[in-house]
Amino acid sequence: MNWLERDAASVWHGFTQMDCYGANSPVIVERAEGRELIDVEGRRYLDAISSLWVTTLGHRVPELDQALREQLDRVAHSTMLGNGNRIVIEFAEALARVVPVDRAHTLFASDGAAAVEQALKIAFQYWTNKGEQGRTTYLAFGDGYHGDTIGSLSLGGGGFGTQIFDPLRFPVLRAPAFTEPGALHTAAQMVREHHRKLAAVVVEPLVQGAAGMSIAPAGDFAELGKACHETGVLLICDEVATGFGRTGTLFASEQCGLRPDLMCLGKGITGGYLPMSATVASQRVFAAFLGPDLSEKTLYHGHSYGGNALAAAVALKHLQLIASLPVLDNVRERSAQLRAGLETRIRPFKRVKHIRLQGLMGAVELDTSDDPKLARRTCTAMVKRGVLSRSMGPVITIVPPLTITAAEIERIVETLAAALEETA
Amino acid sequence: MNWLERDAASVWHGFTQMDCYGANSPVIVERAEGRELIDVEGRRYLDAISSLWVTTLGHRVPELDQALREQLDRVAHSTMLGNGNRIVIEFAEALARVVPVDRAHTLFASDGAAAVEQALKIAFQYWTNKGEQGRTTYLAFGDGYHGDTIGSLSLGGGGFGTQIFDPLRFPVLRAPAFTEPGALHTAAQMVREHHRKLAAVVVEPLVQGAAGMSIAPAGDFAELGKACHETGVLLICDEVATGFGRTGTLFASEQCGLRPDLMCLGKGITGGYLPMSATVASQRVFAAFLGPDLSEKTLYHGHSYGGNALAAAVALKHLQLIASLPVLDNVRERSAQLRAGLETRIRPFKRVKHIRLQGLMGAVELDTSDDPKLARRTCTAMVKRGVLSRSMGPVITIVPPLTITAAEIERIVETLAAALEETA
Repeated sequence: MNWLERDAASVWHGFTQMDCYGANSPVIVERAEGRELIDVEGRRYLDAISSLWVTTLGHRVPELDQALREQLDRVAHSTMLGNGNRIVIEFAEALARVVPVDRAHTLFASDGAAAVEQALKIAFQYWTNKGEQGRTTYLAFGDGYHGDTIGSLSLGGGGFGTQIFDPLRFPVLRAPAFTEPGALHTAAQMVREHHRKLAAVVVEPLVQGAAGMSIAPAGDFAELGKACHETGVLLICDEVATGFGRTGTLFASEQCGLRPDLMCLGKGITGGYLPMSATVASQRVFAAFLGPDLSEKTLYHGHSYGGNALAAAVALKHLQLIASLPVLDNVRERSAQLRAGLETRIRPFKRVKHIRLQGLMGAVELDTSDDPKLARRTCTAMVKRGVLSRSMGPVITIVPPLTITAAEIERIVETLAAALEETA
Repeated sequence: MNWLERDAASVWHGFTQMDCYGANSPVIVERAEGRELIDVEGRRYLDAISSLWVTTLGHRVPELDQALREQLDRVAHSTMLGNGNRIVIEFAEALARVVPVDRAHTLFASDGAAAVEQALKIAFQYWTNKGEQGRTTYLAFGDGYHGDTIGSLSLGGGGFGTQIFDPLRFPVLRAPAFTEPGALHTAAQMVREHHRKLAAVVVEPLVQGAAGMSIAPAGDFAELGKACHETGVLLICDEVATGFGRTGTLFASEQCGLRPDLMCLGKGITGGYLPMSATVASQRVFAAFLGPDLSEKTLYHGHSYGGNALAAAVALKHLQLIASLPVLDNVRERSAQLRAGLETRIRPFKRVKHIRLQGLMGAVELDTSDDPKLARRTCTAMVKRGVLSRSMGPVITIVPPLTITAAEIERIVETLAAALEETA
């Protein structure tokens, strides 16, 4: 059997119809150099999806490799349950200095969805600990995506065939999707109207990523923050996709003028190296859980590998690099270049319906009304030309590493144009 | 500030009352050697809880370090969504050869709870894909623990103050706890009676770990497996805690004579090095998800870091080591020694209520009726004597690495005895 056959015979790939796995030009990665992935046949692909939005500085970054090697010589992992680890403390301190959260305490996990689960449970227990009854539901947005576990899926707006799981999901109050004009204004009004039953509002600041990069105006978010602040409803910002420079600032909350009570982080947190996610809590939230030992005020939640030392070492070095290198400047400059390129070269294709871009989260939405697989086939055509892309329904996503160069942006645009010539 | 103060000021530790964090003798780990953790002051502690049941071969295992370094020179991570990675294929193949699952396909995640969420969603969708209505609930056990996310928490039996979250949990059919005589027989009867509404049975084979190492007789499980087999109800074995040698066989399902349709793995999967979890599906289950591309038969579930290449490289080498070294023999021999030691040295303390042990999952349950913190204080007394232990309610857990030596077992028992002299 070749690698593709061996893969299909032993691995179940998520969000993937395994019956067609081989037909959709999967790349079987063996190694990488910089922003290129190299497959088992030695073919090279520009990683234009950042290995699903996680890779920030590229692959095989010498400083990150070195940080990992050094931690490996100390210890790979020790438990966070009732005990600590020096490198985790150092990372949590570095994180606290840069998140827009008041006196941050960080609870670690490994999957982004688990960070969301932590946030929603903390918000729920917050009100129990405060002795306030009835704050048992959430306001979440249409088209929102927060992960695939039952709690995070409950907060999400659905889609992707997830209605199958409706009997397992808890109900939430649903604000409009970002595609609706005035979505944030409506959400703020809903907070004012329903605050007595709301534990928290959950929002992806600025960009609803999995929805296909739906962008709401940054200026619209302040009203939501104000409504939460004035009614006491906790604000959870899910920055798993937007965090660590992806939208042009270190966190999208900054552009939105939001200071969340709880913040969910993942993906870029380790520069795309290792599984890590985190729930960052403000002092107001953290303080509500203090009480006698073994008491009901305690948060009885914890994942075995939360606060993994190897991941923390990489995350700490990554945070230092992203602050010392001109990464955020590059995101903004390459974003402007990408926008111009998409407008000039891609907009003219008649099947192109929308182009959306915030920082380096980009989407080209096609009219797939008479060809449901048009976006899929276009991505396959890009992969054949050496640029790794991925479709979500009618949307082609463009999410390159934050260190992408001007020449590579040009290559992505030209490759997409060539692919559209072939398919559209 | 010292390290402890810095820790308490920036990290939120799970399952930990942060107001008393410093008072409960936390170990702030800086490095490790073999089975010893070394704190920021250079003090050494025998890791008798395997960094929360994850460490199998000890810390800083040269072969695992080497495997990680070699993979680091190839690539740290690439996405499993629609694409593959060579080292992940190699690990999935190696895993398929040893799991008691028919023609296994593996879906990766990073937190154990996420592996359980994957299993419960796969089981649910399985019946939808088959076109069979009404198979929408689960049979799960009293005192069961499957993780802290809303779905995995719903399957769990509660406890630890998790009743707070009842409004968010979906209901399940509840079989007796393993502490009830004939629990498995009752469960099997419940399967036969209610199978038309059951998507799956979820069970921790042999040992309910977080319940305090509640053990059911291995021979009792076959009846449950038979009831599932005959009624078509899917059998999910949650081996996150029991897998990879912990109970004396590679998987506890083997001792129970079970061949699950879905198996959840985590903790020991990487030898305690890196976050990784996995849901292993049988061919029967996998095949039900095959269909047209972009169709509703697809599993729309996936975690960004699922199938991390660095974790897979360590997991592959770990599986090879555990097969080539006399690890399982050591588990059985040290288990017998530990049992004898506990009976001789610990049983005589009048506050000792129960001693439970399966492989190297051990529990000493104390009578805490007039001192709720007795187990906690006893563990603190052990830590002060250089043996890292942890209590769960009235239970002191003893879960050493699988490579623990005879001398170290003796040290654990003697240290526990000395601690009990002090506290009980």
